[in-house]
Amino acid sequence: MNPVINLERVKQDIYTLGRFGYNAEDQGIYRQGFSEEDMKARYWLMQQMEELELQVYMDGAGNVVGRLGGAEQKALLIGSHLDSVPAGGMFDGVLGVVAGLECIRVIKENNIKLRHALEVVATSEEEGRFGGMLGAQALTGNLKLDWLERAKDHGGLLLREAMGSCQLPYHLAMEAARDPDSLMGFLELHIEQGPVLEQTHNTIGVVEGISGVFKWLIKFIGKADHAGTAPMDLRSDAFMGLADFAHEIPRIIDEEGTDKTRLTIGSVELKPGFAHTVPGEVDFTLVGRDMSEEVMLNIANSCRKVCSSIARRHKLMFEYDQMSWLEPKPCTPVMIELLEKHAKKLGYKTLIMPSGAGHDAQFFADITPTGLMFIPSVGGISHAPDEWSHWHDVEKGCNVLLQAALELVV
Amino acid sequence: MNPVINLERVKQDIYTLGRFGYNAEDQGIYRQGFSEEDMKARYWLMQQMEELELQVYMDGAGNVVGRLGGAEQKALLIGSHLDSVPAGGMFDGVLGVVAGLECIRVIKENNIKLRHALEVVATSEEEGRFGGMLGAQALTGNLKLDWLERAKDHGGLLLREAMGSCQLPYHLAMEAARDPDSLMGFLELHIEQGPVLEQTHNTIGVVEGISGVFKWLIKFIGKADHAGTAPMDLRSDAFMGLADFAHEIPRIIDEEGTDKTRLTIGSVELKPGFAHTVPGEVDFTLVGRDMSEEVMLNIANSCRKVCSSIARRHKLMFEYDQMSWLEPKPCTPVMIELLEKHAKKLGYKTLIMPSGAGHDAQFFADITPTGLMFIPSVGGISHAPDEWSHWHDVEKGCNVLLQAALELVV
Repeated sequence: MNPVINLERVKQDIYTLGRFGYNAEDQGIYRQGFSEEDMKARYWLMQQMEELELQVYMDGAGNVVGRLGGAEQKALLIGSHLDSVPAGGMFDGVLGVVAGLECIRVIKENNIKLRHALEVVATSEEEGRFGGMLGAQALTGNLKLDWLERAKDHGGLLLREAMGSCQLPYHLAMEAARDPDSLMGFLELHIEQGPVLEQTHNTIGVVEGISGVFKWLIKFIGKADHAGTAPMDLRSDAFMGLADFAHEIPRIIDEEGTDKTRLTIGSVELKPGFAHTVPGEVDFTLVGRDMSEEVMLNIANSCRKVCSSIARRHKLMFEYDQMSWLEPKPCTPVMIELLEKHAKKLGYKTLIMPSGAGHDAQFFADITPTGLMFIPSVGGISHAPDEWSHWHDVEKGCNVLLQAALELVV
Repeated sequence: MNPVINLERVKQDIYTLGRFGYNAEDQGIYRQGFSEEDMKARYWLMQQMEELELQVYMDGAGNVVGRLGGAEQKALLIGSHLDSVPAGGMFDGVLGVVAGLECIRVIKENNIKLRHALEVVATSEEEGRFGGMLGAQALTGNLKLDWLERAKDHGGLLLREAMGSCQLPYHLAMEAARDPDSLMGFLELHIEQGPVLEQTHNTIGVVEGISGVFKWLIKFIGKADHAGTAPMDLRSDAFMGLADFAHEIPRIIDEEGTDKTRLTIGSVELKPGFAHTVPGEVDFTLVGRDMSEEVMLNIANSCRKVCSSIARRHKLMFEYDQMSWLEPKPCTPVMIELLEKHAKKLGYKTLIMPSGAGHDAQFFADITPTGLMFIPSVGGISHAPDEWSHWHDVEKGCNVLLQAALELVV
């Protein structure tokens, strides 16, 4: 007997959840953390879990948990998040929750006897409306009470007020922490949200880890001048400093980076920003990623040196602020091997790859063996209404997850 | 007898005019065209002219003219503008008007007999509040009635309404055109508004012409991607296209330009402009200048080719709009020689140079022999409260102007 998932049920769940927060105008999903639609989706999920006769609860952080197994058993957690970005897509997060639920359905309908407990977890507030990954942080004991009290969304709404209007007293989020000794692992299936699997014709991406990431705010300060009266050689043109730096980025990656290195200038502000004025200042962001912290350090060091030397050459002042430095979060080798083994056993072309985006899994990796797996995103598109993954890929991803879970809990 | 100007009188006039529109808070001058303070300054000037017993009038465009000489004589015009940019400086424009007035004072107190008429002209709206150089355009027959009817300032105020509140029926601006046959030339003394004279230790800049200028709006369109999930080689990063183009600018100037070429990227907008998103689009301005239209054409052609090839390399779409193309306006050779001769005769270090900024003179060059002369701007600063020119340079500039004018009209 080789149990397989039922794609029709998975499809129906994904479509059903896709109605919570759906906006007909832009066809986007608006199910931000602790919004009314987000909570409605959670209650709907709890109902499904109850119909499967799981032990069901919402914890103090808004995470929804459905458990199959006895109280004394260690649990394998399968899950992802239910909240969305504004105008998000139908698969992001939802896939991993629905896949977990389907695994339990298959186990129940096949009367498979488990040695361990199996839990489906739908985490809360993964998309960072309030600047963190509240649900996963709470479950893994990675929350600070003062942050809970101060965190706000872009509109200035306090997290604790948002939670309060969902009948969730915010301090109870601290009580959501799971005892690592009660867990035997965490598995997450997610859409890639990038172009790599599609472009390389792979079906399954087994994630070796979440890339480390640093964010710098860089300033080049020169001198604003009249674009007509200031000769080229007498200028201190801040933008030309930035252009020269950006031009060096491929070389910096060639010399110091890996094929997993990403360096991005995503935001640029010129001052004064007039067509007829030589820019006297430019403020820009630099976001760097790699799977190795040592590579990150070398890249950062090289960027600093290049910026300094360009600043001297262009008669500019160079300043930078390190806004954040998050170290890489490797997934657990035994879980990587497990997922890869089952993907290949099922005959799916599989790639070991980093994740450049953050996921719930990165917090679980701190406390329990953790595996994360991707299926292709059409066009690499995500966080947008036209996010899509082919149903045959959804099916394959769910089946790999099922086989890996069975090996762990049966 | 070698008449010289009286610096004290010049100083007093500049300081007096500097009180019209002065803002104590930022120490800037707010005397925008057709503002109350601009008109007050004009009436004050007319009073000074009347005390000198000139024939004084304000024409339909708001230009103030004071004439010494008979109705049948051809006139040499000396002048510049009285209006300022918001938060402007004390010397811009005012210097050329006051210098003209001082020339007439010297001529009168020395009872110098003139063969030709001499006029001091204070033009209106040179700074382009309404998008043109109204006064100079009116005087030189370079106005269109429909433009007069439609022109607006940034706040949406119509030029004709602004003129109306100054008791100037706008259509009378059309009647301000001077008959070229009645003129023998136009001379303008102005501050450089750039760093060249100061940096090269010259006292007098004799302007060979106003640089031609083109303005392009350029778009690179790629694909917005998650900065973490999109590998470097699968991106269509619009900003990296811009960076590569900007990096080529020095080479383009080396290959196609002259030492008078200026290429400036002054305004840049990334879309969506988020730190963690690969820019899917960048809109930027390119402003190019040179004294030769052929060089301008070669530069523009090269920029277009470089942008096209960079767009291909980065998988971007490249679009550009030519917002404007103004050809170079050479000053009149005989006037250039005249000003250079007198500057050198007085022993002042003199540079023949282009003007990258626009001036009233550029319109007069179309209808009458025209000369334009600069004195140094401290730090190259202008259009700002800390605009300054040393009084000894003001004195020297006025004396060169006086000698040149005397040679023409005596």
